Amino acid sequence: MIEPTAQILRDLHPENHSTSSAMLQDVVIGLSDGLTVPFALAAGLSGAVASSGLVITAGLAEIVAGSIAMGLGGYLAGRTEVEHYDTELARERREVQEVPDVERTEVDELLAEMGLSVATRQLAITELTADPEQWVRFMMKYELGLEEPDPRQAPKSAATISSAYAVGGLIPLSAYFFTDTPTEGLAWSAAITLVCLLVFGYFKSRITGQPPVAGALKMAVVGALAAAAAFGIARLVSG
Amino acid sequence: MIEPTAQILRDLHPENHSTSSAMLQDVVIGLSDGLTVPFALAAGLSGAVASSGLVITAGLAEIVAGSIAMGLGGYLAGRTEVEHYDTELARERREVQEVPDVERTEVDELLAEMGLSVATRQLAITELTADPEQWVRFMMKYELGLEEPDPRQAPKSAATISSAYAVGGLIPLSAYFFTDTPTEGLAWSAAITLVCLLVFGYFKSRITGQPPVAGALKMAVVGALAAAAAFGIARLVSG
Repeated sequence: MIEPTAQILRDLHPENHSTSSAMLQDVVIGLSDGLTVPFALAAGLSGAVASSGLVITAGLAEIVAGSIAMGLGGYLAGRTEVEHYDTELARERREVQEVPDVERTEVDELLAEMGLSVATRQLAITELTADPEQWVRFMMKYELGLEEPDPRQAPKSAATISSAYAVGGLIPLSAYFFTDTPTEGLAWSAAITLVCLLVFGYFKSRITGQPPVAGALKMAVVGALAAAAAFGIARLVSG
Repeated sequence: MIEPTAQILRDLHPENHSTSSAMLQDVVIGLSDGLTVPFALAAGLSGAVASSGLVITAGLAEIVAGSIAMGLGGYLAGRTEVEHYDTELARERREVQEVPDVERTEVDELLAEMGLSVATRQLAITELTADPEQWVRFMMKYELGLEEPDPRQAPKSAATISSAYAVGGLIPLSAYFFTDTPTEGLAWSAAITLVCLLVFGYFKSRITGQPPVAGALKMAVVGALAAAAAFGIARLVSG
Protein backbone atom coordinates (compact mmCIF):
# COMPACT_ATOMS: atom_id res chain seq x y z
CA MET A 1 0.00 0.00 0.00
CA ILE A 2 2.63 2.50 1.11
CA GLU A 3 3.82 3.12 -2.37
CA PRO A 4 5.68 6.43 -2.02
CA THR A 5 7.66 4.94 0.88
CA ALA A 6 8.53 2.03 -1.34
CA GLN A 7 9.69 4.52 -3.96
CA ILE A 8 11.78 6.36 -1.39
CA LEU A 9 13.35 3.14 -0.12
CA ARG A 10 14.20 2.28 -3.69
CA ASP A 11 15.77 5.66 -4.31
CA LEU A 12 18.02 5.20 -1.31
CA HIS A 13 19.70 2.08 -2.64
CA PRO A 14 19.49 2.26 -6.41
CA GLU A 15 22.63 0.15 -6.73
CA ASN A 16 21.30 -2.69 -4.65
CA HIS A 17 17.63 -2.74 -5.53
CA SER A 18 17.03 -6.43 -5.93
CA THR A 19 18.16 -7.47 -2.45
CA SER A 20 18.19 -5.48 0.78
CA SER A 21 16.15 -2.46 -0.33
CA ALA A 22 13.35 -4.42 -1.97
CA MET A 23 13.22 -6.69 1.07
CA LEU A 24 13.13 -3.75 3.48
CA GLN A 25 10.38 -2.15 1.41
CA ASP A 26 8.32 -5.36 1.57
CA VAL A 27 8.83 -5.66 5.32
CA VAL A 28 7.63 -2.06 5.76
CA ILE A 29 4.55 -2.68 3.58
CA GLY A 30 3.62 -5.86 5.45
CA LEU A 31 4.30 -4.52 8.95
CA SER A 32 2.42 -1.24 8.40
CA ASP A 33 -0.80 -3.01 7.51
CA GLY A 34 -0.22 -5.98 9.81
CA LEU A 35 0.25 -3.84 12.91
CA THR A 36 -2.82 -1.68 12.23
CA VAL A 37 -5.66 -3.73 10.69
CA PRO A 38 -5.66 -6.88 12.89
CA PHE A 39 -5.10 -4.64 15.94
CA ALA A 40 -8.10 -2.49 15.02
CA LEU A 41 -10.29 -5.50 14.24
CA ALA A 42 -9.48 -7.15 17.57
CA ALA A 43 -10.07 -3.85 19.37
CA GLY A 44 -13.41 -3.45 17.61
CA LEU A 45 -14.55 -6.93 18.54
CA SER A 46 -13.42 -6.44 22.14
CA GLY A 47 -16.18 -3.86 22.49
CA ALA A 48 -18.80 -6.20 21.05
CA VAL A 49 -18.22 -9.77 22.24
CA ALA A 50 -17.77 -11.38 25.64
CA SER A 51 -15.28 -14.10 24.71
CA SER A 52 -11.56 -13.69 24.08
CA GLY A 53 -11.76 -16.89 22.04
CA LEU A 54 -13.94 -15.14 19.46
CA VAL A 55 -11.53 -12.21 19.21
CA ILE A 56 -8.66 -14.65 18.68
CA THR A 57 -10.61 -16.65 16.08
CA ALA A 58 -11.54 -13.53 14.14
CA GLY A 59 -8.05 -12.07 14.54
CA LEU A 60 -6.34 -15.22 13.24
CA ALA A 61 -8.81 -15.45 10.35
CA GLU A 62 -8.02 -11.83 9.48
CA ILE A 63 -4.26 -12.39 9.69
CA VAL A 64 -4.44 -15.45 7.43
CA ALA A 65 -6.79 -13.68 4.98
CA GLY A 66 -4.70 -10.52 4.98
CA SER A 67 -1.34 -12.29 4.54
CA ILE A 68 -2.63 -14.36 1.65
CA ALA A 69 -4.39 -11.44 -0.05
CA MET A 70 -1.35 -9.20 0.37
CA GLY A 71 1.28 -11.82 -0.42
CA LEU A 72 -0.49 -13.31 -3.42
CA GLY A 73 -1.53 -9.83 -4.53
CA GLY A 74 2.10 -8.74 -4.33
CA TYR A 75 3.23 -11.82 -6.24
CA LEU A 76 0.73 -11.28 -9.05
CA ALA A 77 1.52 -7.56 -9.18
CA GLY A 78 5.20 -8.45 -9.53
CA ARG A 79 4.44 -10.89 -12.33
CA THR A 80 2.31 -8.22 -14.03
CA GLU A 81 5.20 -5.77 -13.80
CA VAL A 82 7.52 -8.27 -15.54
CA GLU A 83 4.92 -8.92 -18.27
CA HIS A 84 4.25 -5.21 -18.69
CA TYR A 85 7.98 -4.53 -19.10
CA ASP A 86 8.31 -7.30 -21.70
CA THR A 87 5.27 -6.03 -23.63
CA GLU A 88 6.61 -2.47 -23.69
CA LEU A 89 10.10 -3.70 -24.63
CA ALA A 90 8.70 -5.63 -27.59
CA ARG A 91 6.69 -2.57 -28.66
CA GLU A 92 9.67 -0.20 -28.44
CA ARG A 93 11.83 -2.65 -30.44
CA ARG A 94 9.12 -2.82 -33.10
CA GLU A 95 8.70 0.94 -33.21
CA VAL A 96 12.45 1.57 -33.48
CA GLN A 97 12.46 -0.78 -36.48
CA GLU A 98 9.22 0.26 -38.16
CA VAL A 99 8.83 3.98 -37.41
CA PRO A 100 12.38 5.15 -36.62
CA ASP A 101 11.54 8.75 -37.54
CA VAL A 102 8.73 8.95 -34.98
CA GLU A 103 11.04 7.49 -32.34
CA ARG A 104 13.83 9.86 -33.32
CA THR A 105 11.42 12.80 -32.80
CA GLU A 106 10.58 11.41 -29.35
CA VAL A 107 14.29 11.25 -28.46
CA ASP A 108 14.63 14.83 -29.68
CA GLU A 109 11.74 15.97 -27.46
CA LEU A 110 13.23 14.26 -24.42
CA LEU A 111 16.61 15.88 -25.04
CA ALA A 112 14.99 19.29 -25.64
CA GLU A 113 13.20 18.94 -22.30
CA MET A 114 16.57 18.30 -20.64
CA GLY A 115 17.68 21.68 -22.03
CA LEU A 116 19.97 20.71 -24.92
CA SER A 117 20.44 22.95 -27.98
CA VAL A 118 19.39 21.87 -31.49
CA ALA A 119 23.00 21.27 -32.52
CA THR A 120 23.86 19.12 -29.49
CA ARG A 121 20.58 17.23 -29.85
CA GLN A 122 21.45 16.30 -33.42
CA LEU A 123 24.83 14.93 -32.33
CA ALA A 124 23.27 13.11 -29.39
CA ILE A 125 20.48 11.57 -31.49
CA THR A 126 22.97 10.18 -33.99
CA GLU A 127 24.98 8.56 -31.16
CA LEU A 128 22.00 7.35 -29.14
CA THR A 129 20.29 5.71 -32.09
CA ALA A 130 23.44 4.15 -33.58
CA ASP A 131 22.89 0.89 -31.69
CA PRO A 132 19.20 -0.21 -31.79
CA GLU A 133 19.38 -2.01 -28.44
CA GLN A 134 20.89 1.03 -26.74
CA TRP A 135 18.20 3.17 -28.36
CA VAL A 136 15.45 0.86 -27.06
CA ARG A 137 16.99 0.93 -23.55
CA PHE A 138 17.02 4.75 -23.69
CA MET A 139 13.32 4.87 -24.65
CA MET A 140 12.37 2.36 -21.96
CA LYS A 141 14.17 4.25 -19.23
CA TYR A 142 13.72 7.90 -20.18
CA GLU A 143 10.49 7.94 -22.17
CA LEU A 144 8.58 5.30 -20.21
CA GLY A 145 10.48 5.46 -16.92
CA LEU A 146 10.70 1.66 -16.80
CA GLU A 147 13.58 -0.29 -15.28
CA GLU A 148 13.93 -3.98 -16.03
CA PRO A 149 12.24 -5.86 -13.17
CA ASP A 150 13.87 -8.95 -11.69
CA PRO A 151 11.53 -11.91 -12.33
CA ARG A 152 12.81 -13.67 -9.19
CA GLN A 153 11.63 -10.70 -7.13
CA ALA A 154 7.89 -11.52 -7.22
CA PRO A 155 7.94 -14.76 -5.16
CA LYS A 156 10.44 -13.25 -2.69
CA SER A 157 8.25 -10.16 -2.26
CA ALA A 158 5.17 -12.29 -1.73
CA ALA A 159 6.85 -14.31 1.02
CA THR A 160 8.30 -11.23 2.74
CA ILE A 161 5.06 -9.18 2.68
CA SER A 162 3.01 -12.14 3.92
CA SER A 163 5.38 -12.95 6.76
CA ALA A 164 5.70 -9.31 7.82
CA TYR A 165 1.91 -8.95 7.83
CA ALA A 166 1.54 -12.10 9.93
CA VAL A 167 4.24 -11.03 12.40
CA GLY A 168 2.71 -7.55 12.64
CA GLY A 169 -0.76 -8.99 13.18
CA LEU A 170 0.28 -11.52 15.83
CA ILE A 171 1.71 -8.77 18.05
CA PRO A 172 -1.63 -7.09 18.91
CA LEU A 173 -3.43 -10.45 18.98
CA SER A 174 -0.94 -12.02 21.39
CA ALA A 175 -2.39 -9.92 24.23
CA TYR A 176 -5.67 -11.85 24.01
CA PHE A 177 -3.86 -15.16 24.52
CA PHE A 178 -2.61 -14.34 28.00
CA THR A 179 -5.59 -12.38 29.33
CA ASP A 180 -9.01 -13.61 30.46
CA THR A 181 -11.49 -11.09 29.07
CA PRO A 182 -11.61 -9.11 25.80
CA THR A 183 -11.51 -5.85 27.81
CA GLU A 184 -8.31 -6.86 29.56
CA GLY A 185 -6.93 -8.14 26.26
CA LEU A 186 -7.72 -4.83 24.59
CA ALA A 187 -5.87 -2.82 27.26
CA TRP A 188 -2.72 -4.92 26.85
CA SER A 189 -3.10 -5.12 23.08
CA ALA A 190 -3.39 -1.34 22.77
CA ALA A 191 -0.37 -0.77 25.01
CA ILE A 192 1.84 -3.31 23.21
CA THR A 193 0.73 -2.24 19.73
CA LEU A 194 1.10 1.49 20.31
CA VAL A 195 4.66 0.93 21.52
CA CYS A 196 5.37 -1.20 18.43
CA LEU A 197 3.79 1.40 16.13
CA LEU A 198 5.92 4.15 17.71
CA VAL A 199 9.12 2.10 17.36
CA PHE A 200 8.24 0.97 13.83
CA GLY A 201 7.24 4.52 12.76
CA TYR A 202 10.47 5.85 14.23
CA PHE A 203 12.73 3.47 12.33
CA LYS A 204 10.71 3.65 9.11
CA SER A 205 11.10 7.43 9.14
CA ARG A 206 14.83 7.23 9.94
CA ILE A 207 15.34 4.88 7.00
CA THR A 208 13.44 7.13 4.59
CA GLY A 209 15.13 10.27 5.92
CA GLN A 210 11.99 11.79 7.47
CA PRO A 211 11.71 13.37 10.95
CA PRO A 212 11.58 10.19 13.10
CA VAL A 213 9.54 11.46 16.07
CA ALA A 214 6.80 12.84 13.81
CA GLY A 215 6.85 9.55 11.88
CA ALA A 216 6.50 7.56 15.09
CA LEU A 217 3.51 9.65 16.19
CA LYS A 218 1.85 9.38 12.76
CA MET A 219 1.96 5.57 12.79
CA ALA A 220 0.55 5.47 16.32
CA VAL A 221 -2.26 7.89 15.41
CA VAL A 222 -3.29 5.82 12.37
CA GLY A 223 -3.42 2.67 14.49
CA ALA A 224 -5.31 4.36 17.33
CA LEU A 225 -7.86 5.99 15.01
CA ALA A 226 -8.50 2.77 13.12
CA ALA A 227 -8.94 0.88 16.39
CA ALA A 228 -11.24 3.54 17.89
CA ALA A 229 -13.42 3.60 14.77
CA ALA A 230 -13.64 -0.19 14.63
CA PHE A 231 -14.52 -0.26 18.34
CA GLY A 232 -17.24 2.35 17.78
CA ILE A 233 -18.86 0.63 14.82
CA ALA A 234 -18.76 -2.82 16.44
CA ARG A 235 -20.38 -1.43 19.62
CA LEU A 236 -23.03 0.28 17.53
CA VAL A 237 -23.86 -2.81 15.47
CA SER A 238 -23.86 -5.27 18.35
CA GLY A 239 -25.54 -2.99 20.91
CA MET B 1 -0.48 -2.49 -2.10
CA ILE B 2 -0.60 -3.21 -5.83
CA GLU B 3 2.28 -0.96 -6.59
CA PRO B 4 3.41 -2.19 -10.01
CA THR B 5 -0.18 -1.86 -11.26
CA ALA B 6 -0.20 1.68 -9.94
CA GLN B 7 3.02 2.28 -11.87
CA ILE B 8 1.49 0.82 -15.01
CA LEU B 9 -1.65 2.93 -14.68
CA ARG B 10 0.57 5.97 -14.31
CA ASP B 11 2.58 5.06 -17.40
CA LEU B 12 -0.60 4.86 -19.43
CA HIS B 13 -1.63 8.44 -18.82
CA PRO B 14 1.54 10.38 -18.13
CA GLU B 15 -0.07 13.58 -19.41
CA ASN B 16 -3.01 13.38 -17.06
CA HIS B 17 -1.49 11.92 -13.93
CA SER B 18 -3.06 14.13 -11.31
CA THR B 19 -6.68 13.40 -12.16
CA SER B 20 -8.19 10.35 -13.83
CA SER B 21 -5.19 8.01 -13.72
CA ALA B 22 -4.31 8.65 -10.07
CA MET B 23 -7.97 8.24 -9.16
CA LEU B 24 -8.29 5.00 -11.12
CA GLN B 25 -5.14 3.71 -9.50
CA ASP B 26 -6.54 4.48 -6.03
CA VAL B 27 -9.85 2.80 -6.86
CA VAL B 28 -7.96 -0.32 -8.00
CA ILE B 29 -5.85 -0.37 -4.82
CA GLY B 30 -8.88 0.02 -2.57
CA LEU B 31 -11.14 -2.43 -4.41
CA SER B 32 -8.46 -5.16 -4.67
CA ASP B 33 -7.99 -5.32 -0.92
CA GLY B 34 -11.60 -4.48 -0.06
CA LEU B 35 -13.04 -7.30 -2.13
CA THR B 36 -10.62 -9.91 -0.78
CA VAL B 37 -9.85 -9.33 2.91
CA PRO B 38 -13.34 -8.63 4.38
CA PHE B 39 -14.70 -11.45 2.18
CA ALA B 40 -12.11 -13.87 3.51
CA LEU B 41 -12.62 -12.76 7.12
CA ALA B 42 -16.40 -13.20 6.88
CA ALA B 43 -15.91 -16.57 5.21
CA GLY B 44 -13.52 -17.62 7.95
CA LEU B 45 -15.92 -16.64 10.73
CA SER B 46 -18.80 -18.38 8.96
CA GLY B 47 -17.06 -21.66 9.66
CA ALA B 48 -16.58 -20.83 13.34
CA VAL B 49 -19.62 -18.98 14.71
CA ALA B 50 -23.35 -19.68 14.74
CA SER B 51 -24.62 -16.12 14.43
CA SER B 52 -24.74 -13.98 11.28
CA GLY B 53 -24.79 -10.96 13.58
CA LEU B 54 -21.26 -11.74 14.74
CA VAL B 55 -20.01 -12.13 11.18
CA ILE B 56 -21.56 -8.74 10.34
CA THR B 57 -20.09 -7.08 13.44
CA ALA B 58 -16.62 -8.43 12.72
CA GLY B 59 -16.97 -7.65 9.01
CA LEU B 60 -18.00 -4.05 9.61
CA ALA B 61 -15.22 -3.59 12.19
CA GLU B 62 -12.74 -4.91 9.63
CA ILE B 63 -14.06 -2.65 6.88
CA VAL B 64 -13.86 0.43 9.11
CA ALA B 65 -10.39 -0.53 10.38
CA GLY B 66 -9.16 -1.36 6.89
CA SER B 67 -10.50 1.81 5.25
CA ILE B 68 -9.01 4.04 7.92
CA ALA B 69 -5.66 2.24 7.96
CA MET B 70 -5.47 2.26 4.15
CA GLY B 71 -6.86 5.76 3.64
CA LEU B 72 -4.85 7.44 6.38
CA GLY B 73 -1.82 5.34 5.44
CA GLY B 74 -2.20 6.52 1.86
CA TYR B 75 -2.60 10.12 2.99
CA LEU B 76 0.52 10.04 5.15
CA ALA B 77 2.48 8.25 2.44
CA GLY B 78 1.45 10.99 0.01
CA ARG B 79 2.54 13.70 2.45
CA THR B 80 5.83 11.85 2.96
CA GLU B 81 6.34 11.78 -0.80
CA VAL B 82 5.89 15.57 -0.98
CA GLU B 83 8.29 16.12 1.95
CA HIS B 84 10.81 13.69 0.48
CA TYR B 85 10.70 15.53 -2.85
CA ASP B 86 11.23 18.89 -1.14
CA THR B 87 14.12 17.54 0.94
CA GLU B 88 15.84 16.09 -2.12
CA LEU B 89 15.20 19.28 -4.11
CA ALA B 90 16.83 21.38 -1.40
CA ARG B 91 19.78 18.98 -1.28
CA GLU B 92 20.29 19.01 -5.06
CA ARG B 93 20.13 22.83 -5.10
CA ARG B 94 22.75 22.97 -2.36
CA GLU B 95 25.00 20.44 -4.08
CA VAL B 96 24.78 22.24 -7.43
CA GLN B 97 25.94 25.39 -5.63
CA GLU B 98 28.52 23.92 -3.28
CA VAL B 99 30.02 20.95 -5.14
CA PRO B 100 29.31 21.71 -8.82
CA ASP B 101 32.22 19.52 -9.99
CA VAL B 102 30.83 16.44 -8.25
CA GLU B 103 27.40 17.11 -9.76
CA ARG B 104 28.92 17.70 -13.20
CA THR B 105 30.63 14.28 -12.96
CA GLU B 106 27.24 12.75 -12.10
CA VAL B 107 25.66 14.37 -15.18
CA ASP B 108 28.55 13.01 -17.23
CA GLU B 109 27.98 9.49 -15.89
CA LEU B 110 24.26 9.65 -16.69
CA LEU B 111 24.97 10.82 -20.23
CA ALA B 112 27.65 8.15 -20.70
CA GLU B 113 25.12 5.53 -19.63
CA MET B 114 22.75 6.84 -22.31
CA GLY B 115 25.48 6.11 -24.86
CA LEU B 116 26.86 9.58 -25.67
CA SER B 117 30.45 10.13 -26.75
CA VAL B 118 32.93 12.18 -24.70
CA ALA B 119 32.70 15.13 -27.10
CA THR B 120 28.88 15.25 -27.14
CA ARG B 121 28.80 14.83 -23.37
CA GLN B 122 31.03 17.89 -22.94
CA LEU B 123 28.69 19.99 -25.10
CA ALA B 124 25.61 18.63 -23.33
CA ILE B 125 27.06 19.22 -19.85
CA THR B 126 27.81 22.87 -20.67
CA GLU B 127 24.23 23.40 -21.86
CA LEU B 128 22.49 21.38 -19.13
CA THR B 129 24.35 23.13 -16.34
CA ALA B 130 24.04 26.67 -17.78
CA ASP B 131 20.83 27.32 -15.85
CA PRO B 132 21.06 26.06 -12.21
CA GLU B 133 17.30 25.40 -11.93
CA GLN B 134 17.28 23.37 -15.14
CA TRP B 135 20.33 21.49 -13.88
CA VAL B 136 18.58 20.71 -10.58
CA ARG B 137 15.46 19.53 -12.48
CA PHE B 138 17.65 17.24 -14.59
CA MET B 139 19.25 15.70 -11.48
CA MET B 140 15.87 15.24 -9.78
CA LYS B 141 14.34 13.51 -12.75
CA TYR B 142 17.19 11.51 -14.25
CA GLU B 143 19.53 10.85 -11.32
CA LEU B 144 16.88 10.36 -8.64
CA GLY B 145 13.91 9.44 -10.83
CA LEU B 146 11.67 11.86 -8.89
CA GLU B 147 8.75 13.79 -10.41
CA GLU B 148 7.25 16.68 -8.50
CA PRO B 149 4.25 15.29 -6.55
CA ASP B 150 1.01 17.26 -6.37
CA PRO B 151 0.41 18.18 -2.70
CA ARG B 152 -3.38 18.18 -3.26
CA GLN B 153 -3.15 14.52 -4.30
CA ALA B 154 -2.68 13.04 -0.80
CA PRO B 155 -6.13 13.90 0.67
CA LYS B 156 -7.88 12.93 -2.59
CA SER B 157 -6.04 9.59 -2.64
CA ALA B 158 -6.92 8.92 0.97
CA ALA B 159 -10.63 9.50 0.33
CA THR B 160 -10.67 7.41 -2.86
CA ILE B 161 -8.78 4.44 -1.40
CA SER B 162 -10.92 4.44 1.75
CA SER B 163 -14.19 4.61 -0.15
CA ALA B 164 -13.14 1.94 -2.64
CA TYR B 165 -12.09 -0.35 0.22
CA ALA B 166 -15.41 0.19 1.98
CA VAL B 167 -17.44 -0.41 -1.20
CA GLY B 168 -15.39 -3.51 -1.97
CA GLY B 169 -15.84 -4.83 1.57
CA LEU B 170 -19.59 -4.22 1.76
CA ILE B 171 -20.21 -6.38 -1.32
CA PRO B 172 -19.23 -9.72 0.31
CA LEU B 173 -20.71 -8.67 3.66
CA SER B 174 -24.09 -7.71 2.16
CA ALA B 175 -24.90 -11.41 1.69
CA TYR B 176 -25.03 -11.89 5.48
CA PHE B 177 -27.65 -9.13 5.84
CA PHE B 178 -30.30 -10.94 3.83
CA THR B 179 -29.62 -14.54 4.90
CA ASP B 180 -30.44 -16.28 8.19
CA THR B 181 -27.36 -18.39 8.97
CA PRO B 182 -23.64 -17.82 8.45
CA THR B 183 -23.51 -20.92 6.21
CA GLU B 184 -26.20 -19.54 3.92
CA GLY B 185 -24.54 -16.12 4.04
CA LEU B 186 -21.21 -17.66 3.05
CA ALA B 187 -22.70 -19.41 0.02
CA TRP B 188 -24.22 -16.15 -1.29
CA SER B 189 -21.21 -14.10 -0.28
CA ALA B 190 -18.82 -16.43 -2.14
CA ALA B 191 -21.02 -16.41 -5.25
CA ILE B 192 -21.43 -12.60 -5.32
CA THR B 193 -17.79 -11.90 -4.48
CA LEU B 194 -16.30 -14.34 -6.98
CA VAL B 195 -18.41 -12.75 -9.73
CA CYS B 196 -17.24 -9.28 -8.64
CA LEU B 197 -13.59 -10.44 -8.47
CA LEU B 198 -13.86 -11.89 -11.99
CA VAL B 199 -15.41 -8.67 -13.37
CA PHE B 200 -12.97 -6.45 -11.46
CA GLY B 201 -9.95 -8.56 -12.50
CA TYR B 202 -11.15 -8.47 -16.10
CA PHE B 203 -11.42 -4.68 -16.29
CA LYS B 204 -8.29 -4.07 -14.24
CA SER B 205 -6.31 -6.21 -16.71
CA ARG B 206 -7.91 -4.51 -19.72
CA ILE B 207 -6.92 -1.11 -18.36
CA THR B 208 -3.32 -2.16 -17.72
CA GLY B 209 -3.06 -3.94 -21.07
CA GLN B 210 -2.78 -7.45 -19.65
CA PRO B 211 -4.67 -10.56 -20.86
CA PRO B 212 -8.10 -9.91 -19.28
CA VAL B 213 -9.36 -13.48 -18.85
CA ALA B 214 -6.17 -14.53 -17.05
CA GLY B 215 -6.41 -11.38 -14.91
CA ALA B 216 -10.01 -12.18 -14.00
CA LEU B 217 -9.08 -15.72 -12.94
CA LYS B 218 -6.10 -14.51 -10.91
CA MET B 219 -8.22 -12.10 -8.84
CA ALA B 220 -10.80 -14.82 -8.20
CA VAL B 221 -8.12 -17.33 -7.18
CA VAL B 222 -6.55 -14.88 -4.69
CA GLY B 223 -9.95 -14.23 -3.12
CA ALA B 224 -10.88 -17.90 -2.99
CA LEU B 225 -7.55 -18.97 -1.49
CA ALA B 226 -7.63 -16.26 1.17
CA ALA B 227 -11.21 -17.20 2.07
CA ALA B 228 -10.46 -20.93 2.18
CA ALA B 229 -7.41 -20.40 4.40
CA ALA B 230 -9.30 -18.08 6.75
CA PHE B 231 -12.14 -20.62 6.92
CA GLY B 232 -9.65 -23.40 7.72
CA ILE B 233 -7.82 -21.52 10.47
CA ALA B 234 -11.05 -20.25 12.09
CA ARG B 235 -12.47 -23.82 12.12
CA LEU B 236 -9.27 -25.12 13.62
CA VAL B 237 -9.07 -22.50 16.38
CA SER B 238 -12.73 -22.62 17.33
CA GLY B 239 -13.20 -26.36 16.95
